[in-house]
Amino acid sequence: MITTLLRRSLLDASKPATSINAILFHQLAPAENFRAPAMGGLRDFSKMIFEKKKTSETEKGSGDGEKADDQGNKGEQLIVSYWGVKPMKITKEDGTEWKWTCFRPWETYKADLTIDLKKHHVPSTLPDKLAYWMVKSLRWPTDLFFQRRYGCRAMMLETVAAVPGMVGGMLMHFKSLRRFEQSGGWIKALLEEAENERMHLMTFMEVAKPKWYERALVIAVQGVFFNAYLLGYLISPKFAHRMVGYLEEEAIHSYTEFLKELDNGNIENVPAPAIAIDYWRLEADATLRDVVMVVRADEAHHRDVNHYASDIHYQGHELKEAPAPIGYH
Amino acid sequence: MITTLLRRSLLDASKPATSINAILFHQLAPAENFRAPAMGGLRDFSKMIFEKKKTSETEKGSGDGEKADDQGNKGEQLIVSYWGVKPMKITKEDGTEWKWTCFRPWETYKADLTIDLKKHHVPSTLPDKLAYWMVKSLRWPTDLFFQRRYGCRAMMLETVAAVPGMVGGMLMHFKSLRRFEQSGGWIKALLEEAENERMHLMTFMEVAKPKWYERALVIAVQGVFFNAYLLGYLISPKFAHRMVGYLEEEAIHSYTEFLKELDNGNIENVPAPAIAIDYWRLEADATLRDVVMVVRADEAHHRDVNHYASDIHYQGHELKEAPAPIGYH
Repeated sequence: MITTLLRRSLLDASKPATSINAILFHQLAPAENFRAPAMGGLRDFSKMIFEKKKTSETEKGSGDGEKADDQGNKGEQLIVSYWGVKPMKITKEDGTEWKWTCFRPWETYKADLTIDLKKHHVPSTLPDKLAYWMVKSLRWPTDLFFQRRYGCRAMMLETVAAVPGMVGGMLMHFKSLRRFEQSGGWIKALLEEAENERMHLMTFMEVAKPKWYERALVIAVQGVFFNAYLLGYLISPKFAHRMVGYLEEEAIHSYTEFLKELDNGNIENVPAPAIAIDYWRLEADATLRDVVMVVRADEAHHRDVNHYASDIHYQGHELKEAPAPIGYH
Repeated sequence: MITTLLRRSLLDASKPATSINAILFHQLAPAENFRAPAMGGLRDFSKMIFEKKKTSETEKGSGDGEKADDQGNKGEQLIVSYWGVKPMKITKEDGTEWKWTCFRPWETYKADLTIDLKKHHVPSTLPDKLAYWMVKSLRWPTDLFFQRRYGCRAMMLETVAAVPGMVGGMLMHFKSLRRFEQSGGWIKALLEEAENERMHLMTFMEVAKPKWYERALVIAVQGVFFNAYLLGYLISPKFAHRMVGYLEEEAIHSYTEFLKELDNGNIENVPAPAIAIDYWRLEADATLRDVVMVVRADEAHHRDVNHYASDIHYQGHELKEAPAPIGYH
C-alpha cells in the first residue's frame, strides 16, 4: 500500500493541485473548513434530515441542550455542525469527485501479477496435514454446489475469505492490550487482508447477484466458520494461518478455472465493474478477466502471508518478532 | 489522516527524495527489490533463524518441497525468500530508518488542539440517560482505585478505550459480508479509533509500568467489557455509541485533571516518550504535558464520532447512509 500510496501522492504533487487542495483545505484553513468542502459532503446528510424533520426537531430540543440556540440558524445541518464531524470532500487525480465511501484513493493499488501462483507448502507435520486435508475435503461439497458458476462461487467464497483476517487482527489487538505489548504491525497486516477480501466481495457483487437461499447459506456458513476459526486461532494460530494458506491455494485454483471458463466463452467476459477499475487502478476498458487476474494475485499474496505467519510460529516465535508485511499486495 | 498523509507526502515530494526512493524502490525496480531494501529489513529475521537453525533445516526439507534446491544458496533467509514476503525498509523524512513497527509514517498526524472540550450530549431519552448514568456510576470505583495516579490511570483506561472501536468495526465488517452491502467507510473509521486508542496505550506504557495485579485487573476487565459491549452493540448500536460518547467525555475530564497535576508539580513533567513524538509529530523537546494534550484532543474527536454515530441511528438511519469520518483527528 505504501508504495502505491506514496507513488500516488507524488503524482498528485506534480499535478495542478486540484485534488490535493480540495483535501488539504481542511488542514490549512480550519476557519473555511466548515463552509466550503464540508457542504459538498453534507448534501446527502441534509437531505436525510429533511426526510426526518420531526426527529431532527426533537434532537435539536434535547440532544444539543443549551448549544441548540446558538446553533439554531444552521437548521437541518444541526447535528453534524454540533459534533463538528466534517465529511471530507475527496477528488480523484483528474479533479472529479471520489464516488466510493467503502474505500479511499490511498487504499487503491496496482496488483503485482508477477507473483508465483504455483507455490505450495508441502504438509509435513500432523497439524499441517490436518489443515491441508480439512481444506481439501471442503472442496468437494463446494464444487458440487457451484459446479461451473464461478462468478457466483467467487462472490460466495469471498464472504468466507474475509473472516480470518478480521478474527486474527481482532485477537492480536486484544492480546496487545492485555499484555501491554506492541503487535509489530501484524494487527494492521491482518486487518488489511480482511479489507482486501471484503473489496473482492464488493466487486463480485456487481457481477453476480445472490439469491435468497444463497444469502441464507452465507449467514449459516459465517455463523459456523467465524466461531470455528475464532476457536482454532485461540488454540493454535500456527494451525489457523496454515489453514488459511491452504484455503488461498484453493482460491487460486478456482480463479484459474474461472479464467478458463472466460477464455473458452462459457462465461461472458463483461466489462469490469467501476468499483474494480478504481480499486485496482485498471484501464477504463478493463474486463471481468482483468478483475479475476488481480483478485487471483491478491489471493496469492494472502497465501504467502499466512504460510509465512505459520512458519514464524513453527520456529517458536511470535508474529510481532518478525516484520509485518504491511501493504504486501 | 488523509490530510496529514497528503500533507506529509507533499513535504516528502519537496525534499531530496531519500525516504521516498527507499520506499518506491520496491515498486519501481522489482528485480532489485529483493537484494537491497529487503536485506535491511531481513537482518533481525535472519538472526532469529540462526538461533533456531535446526527448525529452519526441517522447514527447508519439508516446508519448501521441490523449491528447496534452487533456494538453497539463500541459506538462513530461506523462508522469507520462499514466500517472497518482503519486509519493507521505511525511512523518515530525514533519511534515518523508521524504528516503529506498530505504526508507520503515514499513520502519524498533528492533533487538532482547537477542538471544543466542553461539548456534551444532554441525555433526554431513556437509553441515553441509562448510558449516561452507567458511565457516571463507573467513575466512582475508578476514582477510588487510582486516586491521583493519573499516569497509571491513563494507561489502564486505554486498555478499555481500545475495545469499542474494534468490536464495532468487526461487527460492521461481518454485517457487510452477510448482507452483501457496503459499509460507507464506517468499518475503517471505527477500526481507526481502536488503533488510535491502542497507540495511546503504547505511549503511556512508556511512562507507567503496570504491576502484576494491574495486569490481572486488565485481563478481568477486558473479559467483562468486551462481552458486555459486544452484546450491547448487537442489541442497540445507538446505545453502544452513545455510551462510548459519554466514556470519552469522562476521559477528557480525567486528562484535564492529569494536566492540573502536572501543572501544580504533583506529577513530574518528564520528557515525552520517543514513540509519542513520532506518532503525533511533536517537537523533539516535547514533554508528558504535550502528550496528554494531544491524547485529550483525540478523545474529544472520538466523543464527537460516537455521539454522531448514535445521532444517526436516532434518526432512523444506518451508519453507512452518512459519510464516515475517516481520519477525523
